[in-house]
Amino acid sequence: MAATRSGTAEAAVSWLAEHEREGIERLVEWLRIPSVSTDPAYRGEVRRAAEWAAEHLRASGLHAELHPTGDTSADPAGTGHPIVFAQTPSARSGSGPHILFYGHYDVQPADPLELWESPPFEPTIRPAQGGVGEVGERVVARGAVDDKGQVATFLEAVRAWSEASGTPAGGARITVLLEGEEESGSVNLERYLEQRAELFRGCDVCVISDTGMLGRGRPAITYGVRGLAYTEVVLHGPDQDLHSGMWGGKAPNPISELVKVLAQLWDADRRVTIPGFYEGVPEVEPGERSAWEALGVDEAEALRKIGLPPEASVGEAGYSFTEREWARPTAEINGIVGGYTGKGAKTVIPSHASAKVSFRLVGDQDPARIAKSFFDFCNARTPPGCRWTFIDHGGGHAATVATDSPLLRKAAEALRAASGAEPALIKTGGSIPVAGLLKQRLGLETIFMGFGLDDDRVHSPNEKFELDCFRLGARAHALFIGELVGGA
Amino acid sequence: MAATRSGTAEAAVSWLAEHEREGIERLVEWLRIPSVSTDPAYRGEVRRAAEWAAEHLRASGLHAELHPTGDTSADPAGTGHPIVFAQTPSARSGSGPHILFYGHYDVQPADPLELWESPPFEPTIRPAQGGVGEVGERVVARGAVDDKGQVATFLEAVRAWSEASGTPAGGARITVLLEGEEESGSVNLERYLEQRAELFRGCDVCVISDTGMLGRGRPAITYGVRGLAYTEVVLHGPDQDLHSGMWGGKAPNPISELVKVLAQLWDADRRVTIPGFYEGVPEVEPGERSAWEALGVDEAEALRKIGLPPEASVGEAGYSFTEREWARPTAEINGIVGGYTGKGAKTVIPSHASAKVSFRLVGDQDPARIAKSFFDFCNARTPPGCRWTFIDHGGGHAATVATDSPLLRKAAEALRAASGAEPALIKTGGSIPVAGLLKQRLGLETIFMGFGLDDDRVHSPNEKFELDCFRLGARAHALFIGELVGGA
Repeated sequence: MAATRSGTAEAAVSWLAEHEREGIERLVEWLRIPSVSTDPAYRGEVRRAAEWAAEHLRASGLHAELHPTGDTSADPAGTGHPIVFAQTPSARSGSGPHILFYGHYDVQPADPLELWESPPFEPTIRPAQGGVGEVGERVVARGAVDDKGQVATFLEAVRAWSEASGTPAGGARITVLLEGEEESGSVNLERYLEQRAELFRGCDVCVISDTGMLGRGRPAITYGVRGLAYTEVVLHGPDQDLHSGMWGGKAPNPISELVKVLAQLWDADRRVTIPGFYEGVPEVEPGERSAWEALGVDEAEALRKIGLPPEASVGEAGYSFTEREWARPTAEINGIVGGYTGKGAKTVIPSHASAKVSFRLVGDQDPARIAKSFFDFCNARTPPGCRWTFIDHGGGHAATVATDSPLLRKAAEALRAASGAEPALIKTGGSIPVAGLLKQRLGLETIFMGFGLDDDRVHSPNEKFELDCFRLGARAHALFIGELVGGA
Repeated sequence: MAATRSGTAEAAVSWLAEHEREGIERLVEWLRIPSVSTDPAYRGEVRRAAEWAAEHLRASGLHAELHPTGDTSADPAGTGHPIVFAQTPSARSGSGPHILFYGHYDVQPADPLELWESPPFEPTIRPAQGGVGEVGERVVARGAVDDKGQVATFLEAVRAWSEASGTPAGGARITVLLEGEEESGSVNLERYLEQRAELFRGCDVCVISDTGMLGRGRPAITYGVRGLAYTEVVLHGPDQDLHSGMWGGKAPNPISELVKVLAQLWDADRRVTIPGFYEGVPEVEPGERSAWEALGVDEAEALRKIGLPPEASVGEAGYSFTEREWARPTAEINGIVGGYTGKGAKTVIPSHASAKVSFRLVGDQDPARIAKSFFDFCNARTPPGCRWTFIDHGGGHAATVATDSPLLRKAAEALRAASGAEPALIKTGGSIPVAGLLKQRLGLETIFMGFGLDDDRVHSPNEKFELDCFRLGARAHALFIGELVGGA
């Protein structure tokens, strides 16, 4: 069996190399569909992108269908965007490891359009020139790396196995869930997973390709993401804007008062002061600490790239640059506005001021509880005569997978074989709420095998995906599928 | 002499009563001219409003001309809006008290237009109904009270004396300066006063009608205004917006850092913490303190009108509600903005955040020095790796006139005779930078004899001026002119 299996893996990898141009052409075709999920004007295009993916999977021999989301009482197509659900025949019947591959086919809006060097939905292949280590070609389009391009690496790997072995995905047990609302808050996903939990019974682990590598030529598996609690607070004072001459010094100024409350969020050690905030936050383990140190993250270079000097490396006292991102929670003001913000001077005391405040979470911190604790914190500091409006914009739990779990080891082995380099085991400070959801609803841990680079301009104009990364991703997924087949 | 003088004063006041409708029609005509000084589209209208006022003064027998302001090198009309300069013949030659009357004929922009119940430049006379003590009629238009309506009370008083006595302004020594840029920061006034100082030599005091009464039926003379220093600070961090997942906890967040710096502006007693801030701030004198107490300002009612409960009366510890406005300096954040301020959530750490911070000043506090001290305060707290941009938007000195000065006493006497009530001697927390300028450039103190009411909606839609107030203003100015004539 071993010889056959490795022989087929070789054939799958060869197939990928021989058919790479077709795979890229397929991706370009998919990227042409402007599947902007937040804008109702693109509703038809979002569905078209879903159908496109289902067709790709069907052509690889999987059973694939679109599942409606949201409210289906008026229209069976649902008020939400469809989920592409697909399975290999052996997923329902066979034995051996069964993975759930999650990805999303919707994209962020493309504005500001004027900053794109080529139209966002007319993908172009360009030389990857300019920066250190930038060689080869790249595809430039909205969704190039987030997440169509990364999903395509998986779709091509499945295709390669089907073509090379004559059996759908080489007989691997795979369930696929492609969401169409990731960029608009995954508003219908939780209910979908709740109602359709039986579809995912038997899955062993989730695999997501929506993260990055450690750098060019430095493949990585991400084994943890931070959670998120995103809130908004509005402080209301007088019922009208006031003249600061008549009222300055006589009554609360909502901007000044809001600023005084928010400034109390951190102590001198830059620790968050909300009571109970650190409950459920695990300490960094010595093994992790030394493993992360060994990664040799260039802190000064990372800061230089964003225009900051080395002394700008500030955060919670007692933790390294990397630890502060990967293992520690944080509170950030993402937006603030109040009063006059135009040109010149206006002596106003506004009736209200507001801020968007978010928290990155780790361990067992619960997003809803953290939001509540922050609101309690504000309530305990309500300025005289003022009142608050609180909005919980939601978020998600942190998610991790054990670095010694067998399937993570298999994924790392596949990535090593595909790249010829030892994959780094890293975490990210970002949040992928779906991972927390899968853990909570289905009990599944998630392996993040991503192929993006720091400079891919995710969510920005001129988003791109290096073809080197596309190639590596397809090969790694093909070899990982080989590990799954081998495990059967 | 006394009999004749008082006889003529009586005649002037009678003339006012008999010709009131014409006076109101004249005001309505002036209000029809949209003299919006901030908008270049209205440049011709601003000039038309100036010419209208000059013509009014000429018809009363004064010498009146328009003086260019700003840069006159390319166009003798100047880059600024003209100043209406006028004098009675006796101003240059006679003896006795000589007043400088200052007012402005430009108005604020009228937007938001949709909130006006009648078009802002189609003045309408409406019943003054609805509120407590609201009787009679009012004129509704942009500029009704700020400041055309108030200037018109003076123009009508001059006209009355000229008509009743057959001598321009009854022979009173009057110089008139009407500015066309008050609502756009009086940007050219200082240079004008500097270059034309000789025109104003010999003036004894300035009189301005651009303030309010203590309430309906409660005439007042304002003998002091606060100064103003208006600044803007921008805190720059990274050279690009960052993702708060990747960067939250690792590098300075300009919003959070700005908030932490600004929150330090006040101590627990709500005193401003900027070093040296209180230098030149005089203590409230016991006589003033008791006089202000005796005014019976209804603090709870004032707060109720702006939707605040009594406990919202907060400000510098140790000072009353009124003292905090009239006699104490204050620091206010008038605007703040940074990061994402749209709907929903965006997990951004912005590259910068900014705030507009202003200070109301008293005594000898110098606006430029206060701005500089605030910038020093920020510099001393620069977050690691960040940098500031500082903008000084300017302002003006505080200005007061001694309550026992002879001309203030004469003004008070005129107001008492006109209203039948004892005029209150009050101050205001607002700033009239021109008063500080006149003090600094010409050595003139200013008596503020104003006829506005709190609910006149200055700078807001549906600005109005009560005809009762117009009537009182014209009569008071006429009787004050009588005092000047009498002093000759």
